[in-house]
Amino acid sequence: MYITGIGRTKFGVLRQSLPELSYAAISAALSDAEMEVGQLDAIFIGNFCGGPTQSQLHINALIADILPVSHIPIIRIETACASGGAALYQALISLSRFNNVMVVGMEKLNVESVKATSAIAMAADRLHDQAEGLIFPASYALIAQQHMLRYGTELDDLAFISLKNHENANLNEFAHFYNTDIDINKIIRSPVVCSPLRLYDCAPLSDGASAVVVSKTKRRDRDVKVIASSCATGNLSLTNTKDITSFPAVKIAVLDAYKQADLSPKDIDIFMVHDCFTIAEIIAMEDIGICKPGESKHLVREGRTKINGDIPVNTDGGLKADGHPIGASGLAQVFEIVKQLRSEAGNRQVKNASIGLTHNVGGVGGTAVIHIFRKD
Amino acid sequence: MYITGIGRTKFGVLRQSLPELSYAAISAALSDAEMEVGQLDAIFIGNFCGGPTQSQLHINALIADILPVSHIPIIRIETACASGGAALYQALISLSRFNNVMVVGMEKLNVESVKATSAIAMAADRLHDQAEGLIFPASYALIAQQHMLRYGTELDDLAFISLKNHENANLNEFAHFYNTDIDINKIIRSPVVCSPLRLYDCAPLSDGASAVVVSKTKRRDRDVKVIASSCATGNLSLTNTKDITSFPAVKIAVLDAYKQADLSPKDIDIFMVHDCFTIAEIIAMEDIGICKPGESKHLVREGRTKINGDIPVNTDGGLKADGHPIGASGLAQVFEIVKQLRSEAGNRQVKNASIGLTHNVGGVGGTAVIHIFRKD
Repeated sequence: MYITGIGRTKFGVLRQSLPELSYAAISAALSDAEMEVGQLDAIFIGNFCGGPTQSQLHINALIADILPVSHIPIIRIETACASGGAALYQALISLSRFNNVMVVGMEKLNVESVKATSAIAMAADRLHDQAEGLIFPASYALIAQQHMLRYGTELDDLAFISLKNHENANLNEFAHFYNTDIDINKIIRSPVVCSPLRLYDCAPLSDGASAVVVSKTKRRDRDVKVIASSCATGNLSLTNTKDITSFPAVKIAVLDAYKQADLSPKDIDIFMVHDCFTIAEIIAMEDIGICKPGESKHLVREGRTKINGDIPVNTDGGLKADGHPIGASGLAQVFEIVKQLRSEAGNRQVKNASIGLTHNVGGVGGTAVIHIFRKD
Repeated sequence: MYITGIGRTKFGVLRQSLPELSYAAISAALSDAEMEVGQLDAIFIGNFCGGPTQSQLHINALIADILPVSHIPIIRIETACASGGAALYQALISLSRFNNVMVVGMEKLNVESVKATSAIAMAADRLHDQAEGLIFPASYALIAQQHMLRYGTELDDLAFISLKNHENANLNEFAHFYNTDIDINKIIRSPVVCSPLRLYDCAPLSDGASAVVVSKTKRRDRDVKVIASSCATGNLSLTNTKDITSFPAVKIAVLDAYKQADLSPKDIDIFMVHDCFTIAEIIAMEDIGICKPGESKHLVREGRTKINGDIPVNTDGGLKADGHPIGASGLAQVFEIVKQLRSEAGNRQVKNASIGLTHNVGGVGGTAVIHIFRKD
């Protein structure tokens, strides 16, 4: 199974509509794949909250309407912030039946902020979490508090992650943020959103779309091989979760993925992790085995997760600074890994990168999707 | 590929919550399959508008929360009213990787009626159809007008379909409606919803859940074989559709299904079609080749689509009278076919039924899913 085409839009506060963004990402991926739309056997869509924010469900038929496709199967997948990754997971399974499949993720989050906040809260349990006021910054603030208490993680550790991701985004033409005067003081002095998380600890509300083409067989030299695809589920409700400093679903999915690829974390050259909040990047590094629980702060402080470090994490800026158009985020991670493994990442290129991993999470660990890719 | 377990709740205006309904249907299907939840390798969910009506997205993680499952992949599929059928389609594809997979569809539609109507309208194109006021009764009223104009279909033909489906539902313990004083006059004199469609031409807003277990191999004698599984897409927008008396996606999916099964319509003993409105049952009969366009009225008038007719259609009462909890409807069709092919349908049993077809449609033909089942 190969990634044979990639495409995306800029992420940010954008004028384009959901169909316009989708069309742009699909066209870019087809062009990159040197493929006509007629060569696609099916399309899988990752979209989280098109209903609540755009009054648009049934987005699979929307895509049928805007593309010159001939009635091929098109299916929408929704697993909260892991929708893009889950759509890819499904698409890869469907290669048992098909030859070339498009995966496209898209989201429009820049609507009235109450509407967006309410929509995003729908990824949490209605009965327990929503009723407690656990919108996502609040949930991840609790997680950060617990991690700090248990492991001595400090505010500065979170700030250094934010700084790294903003610096990386400054090298990414598609990123939501281009923030050339970013520095550690600006981050530390930013307003508190939900203690201990400040503005610069939170991913933004982005609009955008990204797409990849997956194929059963290799078509060109530069095509990247998918060597592991794994999905696991965990608790929807944070209220019912005992230990909130780690996500069991992620650990299970990543162990399965390492087994499929016959690799261990030290074999991976580049990691794209789901940093919806800076604390989530810390939890991710520990859950996927880059280091032991509580030790990621050392890697961060020593600069080892920077582009020129030995364990580069979120080279495109991550959800924090590349942006987080929810349904598109998991596929933007794949876009970046493929760019890196093809040596097309320009001034953010990681040297000698041949194996990359994506980590896409829904809710507070309710859904986890892990993929591993190898230069072939 | 086999259906090895089926379960459902009653459909109707129900007190139970979305997780309670889901749990009930899943438990019933596992019990029917004589299987433990631990034997499931994955779960696929069909749900349409849990976000807009229940403030609950990420329902895959909700299911992980309420079941004693060990982090297996759970994925939510949404393709409007075809969500249940599309989830089954995906589950069957996933049998290339898994042995036993649960498919569960659920919906709660009994909320404030403006909220429900707005949510259902999200299955139509936001830019064109929603802006024109094309809520679904309006769309299907236009379809009915065109079908009447072109083929001479009459109000009475629609009424006879409603009567048949209500009579069938009276034999179905799970049905939304138990209406023993139904007669043709009551139907014809019911209030006009959107001309020419009257109250009794419209499926109700139902709550409910249904589930099926699919397995790679046959486990018991009564297991029913899946001999065709097909999905196609068409236009999202009615505004942009030239001929609205037929759905091209349905024709393409059903031709593919007949080809997979090496059968023609006359080989099918029982049909479950997507009668969200009575006119939709007419369009369905013609699109799936039971008769030529415009001729279904004769079959209806002659009583040939009744349970004891030679072409039984919607023996459980269909969406019209069994009910239409959107994400669950496509799987309730499968429940009925399996009951019939196992000869467990009691006083609505079709004699010598060995092959059955389900026809599940999203929007106004935007998504079409066809399955064919055979007694094995």
